[in-house]
Amino acid sequence: MTQGMLYIVSAPSGTGKSSLIQALLKTKPFHDTRLSISHTTRAMRPGEVNGQHYFFIPLAEFKHMIAKDALLEYARVFDNYYGTSREAIQRVLVTGVDVFLDIDWQGAQQIRAKMSDTRSIFILPPSMEELNRRIRNRCQDSEEVIGRRMAQAVAEMTRFSEYDYLIINNDFNQALLDLQAIIRAERLRLKRQKLRHDALINKLLAD
Amino acid sequence: MTQGMLYIVSAPSGTGKSSLIQALLKTKPFHDTRLSISHTTRAMRPGEVNGQHYFFIPLAEFKHMIAKDALLEYARVFDNYYGTSREAIQRVLVTGVDVFLDIDWQGAQQIRAKMSDTRSIFILPPSMEELNRRIRNRCQDSEEVIGRRMAQAVAEMTRFSEYDYLIINNDFNQALLDLQAIIRAERLRLKRQKLRHDALINKLLAD
Repeated sequence: MTQGMLYIVSAPSGTGKSSLIQALLKTKPFHDTRLSISHTTRAMRPGEVNGQHYFFIPLAEFKHMIAKDALLEYARVFDNYYGTSREAIQRVLVTGVDVFLDIDWQGAQQIRAKMSDTRSIFILPPSMEELNRRIRNRCQDSEEVIGRRMAQAVAEMTRFSEYDYLIINNDFNQALLDLQAIIRAERLRLKRQKLRHDALINKLLAD
Repeated sequence: MTQGMLYIVSAPSGTGKSSLIQALLKTKPFHDTRLSISHTTRAMRPGEVNGQHYFFIPLAEFKHMIAKDALLEYARVFDNYYGTSREAIQRVLVTGVDVFLDIDWQGAQQIRAKMSDTRSIFILPPSMEELNRRIRNRCQDSEEVIGRRMAQAVAEMTRFSEYDYLIINNDFNQALLDLQAIIRAERLRLKRQKLRHDALINKLLAD
């Protein structure tokens, strides 16, 4: 059985990252792709399902996971912890399914340090004006908040060159085709194809 | 301007390699992909056009090209020489266009030794029976000739693991989608996207 690939996807907010990943997960033949589910110590909100939106765990358990190096990455946001369990990811990858991890550049760095065979994708907006427009549409906030979000977006974007692939989300459908092409092509790499078509290759070369 | 990529494509005869490459060259957005044109010392046949099917050159000129290392690869087949000019390839690559080179494993090895930034793709048939059937359909030859071609095909196939990508041509349309995905994904790699979107990236990070 061939191993799935772990994809790290980062982008400043307002780049359409989540919509792209959601659209990808729905398209054939990529419906066997999954989104990584994080562990968190924050309280469950109405409508959330444990094991679907997050794995909700107590702080003591989270700290225990940190201590035994069970997390590929984690971060503290205000009073809550969020992290990615190595075991939860591996459990999906061994079934041959690709896993998507929607994370910032700091999380991406932590994961690359702990797992060698990953691919990372950075998504950029088509222009500064478009990014500004999308951030304004999202948050009906004060100019100060918008200014802070723009500064955060620029800070995140400076990290694009740490990634394997770069997608410019100018046209949503083209960006989705880009994402699909990357996953399809990665599945065609020698190492993965050799495992997937092991039986066929042995037969062809048996002569 | 971003540089095009040189793709080396190999496969045993009867795998549909040429049809796949021809179909790829006709599809958008890959119509800016080109097939490499070889230099040869053999005589031009009726209907052939110099600079389109081959660059037809005298033996002395071919030997001069070998002497000054102007060929990425070459081979002698009976009394004729065939080779790939480094300059002819570079002239296309600098315009940002990807070039396809349809060549056997020996030519592929020569090119990899002389050019570092290439990608190579190997195409396998879906089964031994299908390969046998396709080879029989192609040459209405004696059992001896067919046997020799099958042996050649197997010998070529043993080299598949020297390639970056592996495509199984079970269904022509799926194999074409595979080929398209590889080219699209390779164009999204950081190094090429950085060059292609240089102006945009500078603007986004100017802040």
